[in-house]
Amino acid sequence: MKKLHGIRALAFDAYGTVFDVHSVVTLAETMFPGKGKELSQLWRSKQIEYMFLRTIMGRYIPHDQNTEAGLTYSMKYLGLPGGASERKALMDAYEKLSPFDDARKTLPKLNGIKKAILSVGTPSLLTNLVGNAGIASQFDALLSVDEVKVYKPHPRTYQLATDKFNLQRHEIGFVTSNYFDVAGAKAFGFQVIWINRNSALPDELGLLPDIELNSIENIPEILS
Amino acid sequence: MKKLHGIRALAFDAYGTVFDVHSVVTLAETMFPGKGKELSQLWRSKQIEYMFLRTIMGRYIPHDQNTEAGLTYSMKYLGLPGGASERKALMDAYEKLSPFDDARKTLPKLNGIKKAILSVGTPSLLTNLVGNAGIASQFDALLSVDEVKVYKPHPRTYQLATDKFNLQRHEIGFVTSNYFDVAGAKAFGFQVIWINRNSALPDELGLLPDIELNSIENIPEILS
Repeated sequence: MKKLHGIRALAFDAYGTVFDVHSVVTLAETMFPGKGKELSQLWRSKQIEYMFLRTIMGRYIPHDQNTEAGLTYSMKYLGLPGGASERKALMDAYEKLSPFDDARKTLPKLNGIKKAILSVGTPSLLTNLVGNAGIASQFDALLSVDEVKVYKPHPRTYQLATDKFNLQRHEIGFVTSNYFDVAGAKAFGFQVIWINRNSALPDELGLLPDIELNSIENIPEILS
Repeated sequence: MKKLHGIRALAFDAYGTVFDVHSVVTLAETMFPGKGKELSQLWRSKQIEYMFLRTIMGRYIPHDQNTEAGLTYSMKYLGLPGGASERKALMDAYEKLSPFDDARKTLPKLNGIKKAILSVGTPSLLTNLVGNAGIASQFDALLSVDEVKVYKPHPRTYQLATDKFNLQRHEIGFVTSNYFDVAGAKAFGFQVIWINRNSALPDELGLLPDIELNSIENIPEILS
C-alpha cells in the first residue's frame, strides 16, 4: 500500500468523515415516513449550496443558520407540514451525531501525532459534538471556519491548521469524505486522504487526493 | 402591478433566462434514450457546482472547460458509453441555443434603454450564441465573467455592468431566471427581476428579487 511521508499532524473533517449523519436520516424518516431520505438529501444539498453561495457573495453567517435555512427550504419544497418542534428536533440531532466505528476505533491508535477537527461547524457545535460522543480527548484542537468567516473549500479555512500547528502545508495530512473538501485541501497544499466509504466518483476538478481509503482504520498503516 | 423606478440599463443573464437549454435536453435524449433528462440535470448541476468550487478555491478556468468537466463526470456517473463525438455534439449544442419566445419578442420593444448580456460564458461563446440566434443587434454589450476570472454570484462579475455603463448599482435592472444569480445581483445592489417561468421556490438566502415575473414579456410594463 502507498504511504504518505513527512506528516506531522492530521486534520479531520467532521460531518460525514468522523461523524455519521445517518441518525438524522433516521429521525427524518420517523417524522415523515416515506419522505425522510428525500428530505435529508435535499437538506444536505441545500446546506452545502448555501455555504458556497454565501462564501462567494461575501455573506458568511454561522453554519447552524445555514443548516436551518436549508431545512426551511427543503420542508417547503417537499410540502412537509413540520412546525417549530420538528425543526428543532432535526436541528438538535446535528449536535448529537455518533462517530463512525472506524473513527472511534482508530483515533486512539494515532498517538504521537497532533490531531484536529477542521470543520464548518461553529465552535460551540464542535465542542458539543465531540463532547457528546466522548472523544474530546482525542483532539488537540477544534478548528472552526467561524474564525475566518468563509466556508470550505476557501483556502483561508485550511490555513487554520497550518497556523494552529505552525507547520508547512505538506506536513499536514487532511482526512475527509467530502470531495469538495478533498479538492480544496489539495489545492491548498495538504497531503490529502480521501475516505471514500461508498465508492463515489472523484469530481472533475483537476485535483486528486494523495491516497484513497475506504475506512479510517487504514490510516495508521499509511503513515510512515 | 408593481413598477421599478430609475432603471437606466438592463443586464440579462444568458443560460435559462434569454436562451432555452431545452434543445440540449432533446439532443441528450436522442443520444441516450431514457437517460437524456437525467444526464442533462446532472450535467447542469455539476457545471454549476464546479463554477462555485473553482471560484471559492481561486481556480478559475474558462466556462466551456467547466461545462465539459461536468459532462465528463455525468457520463461516467451514469455509465453512458459516449465517446469524443457524442461529447463534441453535446458541447456544440451549447453554442446554438434558441432564445425563449418571450425574449425574442420583447427585446426589440425595450428601446431607449441600454441592454447587455452578463454571463458566465466566454466572450467567443456569447458572440456565437447571439449571432446564431440573430439577436446580436439587440445588445449594447456582451459582458463575460472571463474578464474578471471568477464566476457568479461573485460581486466582481456584476460590477462589469456598472463599469461598462458607468451607472450606479441601483440604476441597473438585472434579469435572471437562476436564483443564485438573483441572490448575487441583489446582494450587489442591482434592482432584480426574477423570471420565474416554472414557479420555483426562492432560496432561503435572505435575499429576494425586487419583482418576480413569469415571462420576459412583462418587463416593458414594469419599467416606469
